Amino acid sequence: MKKLVNDPNQVVIEMMEGMLEAHPEQLKRIPGTTVLARKDAPVQGKVGLVSGGGSGHEPAHAGYVGKGMLDAAVCGEVFTSPTPDQVYEAIKAVDSGKGVLLIIKNYTGDIMNFEMAAEMAEAEGIQVAKVVVNDDVAVEDSTYTTGRRGIAGTVLVHKIAGAMADSGASLAEVEAVANKVIANVRSMGMALTPCTIPAAGKPGFHLGENEMEIGMGIHGEPGIEKSEIQSADSVAETLTNKVLEDLKLESNDQVVLMVNGLGGTPVMELYIVNRKVAQLLKEKSIHVHETLVGNYMTSLEMAGCSVTILKLDQQLQELFDAKAEAIAYKK
Amino acid sequence: MKKLVNDPNQVVIEMMEGMLEAHPEQLKRIPGTTVLARKDAPVQGKVGLVSGGGSGHEPAHAGYVGKGMLDAAVCGEVFTSPTPDQVYEAIKAVDSGKGVLLIIKNYTGDIMNFEMAAEMAEAEGIQVAKVVVNDDVAVEDSTYTTGRRGIAGTVLVHKIAGAMADSGASLAEVEAVANKVIANVRSMGMALTPCTIPAAGKPGFHLGENEMEIGMGIHGEPGIEKSEIQSADSVAETLTNKVLEDLKLESNDQVVLMVNGLGGTPVMELYIVNRKVAQLLKEKSIHVHETLVGNYMTSLEMAGCSVTILKLDQQLQELFDAKAEAIAYKK
Repeated sequence: MKKLVNDPNQVVIEMMEGMLEAHPEQLKRIPGTTVLARKDAPVQGKVGLVSGGGSGHEPAHAGYVGKGMLDAAVCGEVFTSPTPDQVYEAIKAVDSGKGVLLIIKNYTGDIMNFEMAAEMAEAEGIQVAKVVVNDDVAVEDSTYTTGRRGIAGTVLVHKIAGAMADSGASLAEVEAVANKVIANVRSMGMALTPCTIPAAGKPGFHLGENEMEIGMGIHGEPGIEKSEIQSADSVAETLTNKVLEDLKLESNDQVVLMVNGLGGTPVMELYIVNRKVAQLLKEKSIHVHETLVGNYMTSLEMAGCSVTILKLDQQLQELFDAKAEAIAYKK
Repeated sequence: MKKLVNDPNQVVIEMMEGMLEAHPEQLKRIPGTTVLARKDAPVQGKVGLVSGGGSGHEPAHAGYVGKGMLDAAVCGEVFTSPTPDQVYEAIKAVDSGKGVLLIIKNYTGDIMNFEMAAEMAEAEGIQVAKVVVNDDVAVEDSTYTTGRRGIAGTVLVHKIAGAMADSGASLAEVEAVANKVIANVRSMGMALTPCTIPAAGKPGFHLGENEMEIGMGIHGEPGIEKSEIQSADSVAETLTNKVLEDLKLESNDQVVLMVNGLGGTPVMELYIVNRKVAQLLKEKSIHVHETLVGNYMTSLEMAGCSVTILKLDQQLQELFDAKAEAIAYKK
C-alpha cells in the first residue's frame, strides 16, 4: 500500500487535525467528536447546514464548510457512515434556533444514521429537515444503496442550499431549494483504477491492465459494465449521454457542468474530458453557465472521473452565483 | 497506460481546448499558439506576467492565469520546454507598454527558450525582465538543470509578483519582489509512484512496491535517496527539516506553508502530512500565516507531495494577502 499515512486506523482523526492546523480561522472541531464546523458556528439567524458521510472523498465534505456553504461536516471512518451520535453533535453545534438541514448522500447507512440523529435532535426541540441526494444515474440500487447513489452533485446542493441559508431563508425554504437542486442534478462516473482503504491495505476491487468500469460508484460499487479502456471522447460521450437522457434538457437550457476527478486523475485529463462534454452540450444548444473542473468528490486515489449536470432556473442560477468562502470552494 | 486521453500526441492542445471551454470568460488562446492568456490581455497600465513550461503540472501554469496572478501561460509539450517562438507570442500578447516579467522554473531548456524569446521581444522594443525560480533544496544540478530545480514555490512567485503588478508597480519593482520571493522560498518533494507521459506510454522510472524516493523532481528526476516507504510523519519531518535547514528561520518568523500534492495523492494524505509539518513549525515558534493544501504543481498522476515554505516580511505578506482571481487560485 503506497500511502502517506501513519497508523492506518487513525487516518480520519489525523486528517482532521491537519485540516484544523491548515485552516484555524475557518474551522473548529466540536470537542470529542469527528465534526468539523465553521469557527463561528452557530451562526445567528441562519439555518444550519450539516453534511458528511464516510471519509475518503475529500475535499468532500469538510472542504465545503464555510460561509455560503456548510456549517458542519461529520467525518465518518473511511467509506463508512458516521454514527448517529456524531451527526447529532453536529446538529447541536450549528443550530442557532432556526433549524438545521441535513444533506445526505443516498447510502443506506448514511440515511439510517442521519435519521436517527435527526430524531435525537428533534427530541431536544431542534427543528431538523433532511434531503437525500441521489444524482448518480448509473444504476438503481447498489451495494450500499436502495435507489440511486449520491455522488458529486452533492457539492452543488451544498453550494445552492448554502446560499439560500445565507440569505436568511427559513428551514422549509432551504429544504425546498435543496430538493429543487436534487430534482435537477444528475451525474455519472467511471473508474480506471481501484483505490485502497488504508485500514484494509489492499484495493477494494480489481480492474485489469486495459480495463475500465463505467458507472462505478465512489466506494468502488459496481457500475454498468467493464470494458477495454476507451478514449477520453468516448468516455465523455457515454457519461454525458446517460446524464442527458435522464435530465431531459431542451435547447437553450442553462446548466452548471462539473467534470470531477476521483483523486488520481491528472487535471490535464479532466480538461480533455471537458473538451468533449462541452462540444456535446453545444451541439444540443445547451448553454453552460459555469464549468467546474477538478477534484470535488473523490474516492481516495482512484483514477477516473464523473460528469455532473445541473439544470438551472433563475433562482438556482442566482444562488449558484452567490459568494461562497469554503476552504475548497471559493466564489 | 491508464489515461483519459484521445491521441497521446494531442493531449496539450486538447487540454487547452478543454480549459477554454471551461473558462471562456477568463481565458483566451493567442491564435495559432499554445499560449493561454487573460481574456482582457494586454491589461493597460500593468506589467505583464508570463510563465509556463512543460505541461503535465496542472493547474500550473494556465490555472494561475487571471487577475492578480499571471497574464499568460505558455503550454509546452508534456514535460518539455515551450519553444522560444511560443514564449515570444505570449510576451507580445500581454505587453501593454509597461514591460513583461518572465517567471521561469530553473530547467536548462526553459531558461534557454525563455531567454531567446526575451531577446526576440526586446529586439521589437518590448521591455522584458526574467526571474528564475530555484526553490527545490533536494539537489544541486539535476537531469535537466544546472543549480536547483524550480518546483511548487513558483506558484507563490506568481501570486506575489502578480499582486505587485496589479498594484501598478514598474517592471523593475515587480522583478525585485519576484526575486525577493525566490530568495525566501524553499521546497522539497518526494514520490511514492512514477508517472507516465502519454506519448511515452510507460512510466518514466521505477519505484518498487515498498519503495519511495525523497527529493524527486517534478519530472521524475532523481532525488536524494530511495528507501522503504516511511510514515507520513517521517516524510513530513525529512522534507520540513531539509527546507528549514536551508531557509534559516528564526522564532516568530511568519511563513506561508504549502503542502502540495503531485497529482495522485489523496487530499486526506496531504492533510495528514500537514498535521506533522504544522507541529514541527510550532515547536520552532514559527508562525504560519496561511497554509495551502492541495494539488498546485503536479506531475501528472504521480503519488507524492512537496513541502514549500516562504518566509514573509510585511511587503510579501500584504501582497500574498491581496485579491487573486485565477482559475485555480482564488483569494
